[in-house]
Amino acid sequence: MKEEIHANLSVRIFTDQKCFGPGVAQLLRYVDELHSLRAAALAMSMAYSKAWTVIHNAETGLGFKLLCSVTGGKNGGGAVLTEEARKMISAYEEYCEKLHAFGDTLFEETFAFYHDLVKENNA
Amino acid sequence: MKEEIHANLSVRIFTDQKCFGPGVAQLLRYVDELHSLRAAALAMSMAYSKAWTVIHNAETGLGFKLLCSVTGGKNGGGAVLTEEARKMISAYEEYCEKLHAFGDTLFEETFAFYHDLVKENNA
Repeated sequence: MKEEIHANLSVRIFTDQKCFGPGVAQLLRYVDELHSLRAAALAMSMAYSKAWTVIHNAETGLGFKLLCSVTGGKNGGGAVLTEEARKMISAYEEYCEKLHAFGDTLFEETFAFYHDLVKENNA
Repeated sequence: MKEEIHANLSVRIFTDQKCFGPGVAQLLRYVDELHSLRAAALAMSMAYSKAWTVIHNAETGLGFKLLCSVTGGKNGGGAVLTEEARKMISAYEEYCEKLHAFGDTLFEETFAFYHDLVKENNA
C-alpha cells in the first residue's frame, strides 16, 4: 500500500469537435509572452507546423480567431492574442482552478477508505 | 461560432505512479460481468497481454490485488474482483459522477461569455 493517493483531472473543451485543452492554453500563454507562434512552438519543443495545426483546429472548433498577425514594429511583427483568446484562457484557468479545488476535497472524502486500508495493512 | 460547448473531464488516479483510470475501471467491469480477464480484454478489443499489463500496473500502483483467480466450478474457473477492486470502482464512479455534476454547473457559469459571443455574431 502506498501512503499517497490523488487524482489528476484533465479538462478538454468540445463544440462539435475538440477545441481547447491544456496544450492550446499553454501554447497561447507562450504566444502572449513571446509575441510569436514560432517562438511559442520552440518553447514547447513542438514543430511549428504542429503548433499552427493546433491553433487552426482550435479556431475552427471555437468559431473565432485566437491569434492575429501584426506586421512591422520594433520586433519585426509576430502574433498577438485576440480578445476572444484571452477570454478563453481566463475562463479555462478559472474553470480548472475551481474544479481542482472541489475535486481535492471530494477526493479526500470519497477515497478515505484507501487510507483505512493502508492503516489496516500497517497495523 | 458553434451553439454548443461543453467540457470533457477525465480522471486518472496516481499514487507514486498512475494506478487507476477509465480504462482500468471498464476492464474491471467487464471482468465482473464475464468472470474472465481474457473475455474482458476481447470485449474491449484489447490484447490479453495488454489487459494483463494494465491490471498488473494498477495493482502495483495501488499496492493491492484487483483480481483473484478461481479454479474449477461449472464455468471452468476464471477471474473475480477482489473486495478492494469493488471499493475502487465504486469510489471512482462516485467521484466522477459528483465531479461531473459540479463541473457542468461551473461550466455554464464560467463559459457564459461564449454564448454571449454567439449571440453577438448572430445578431
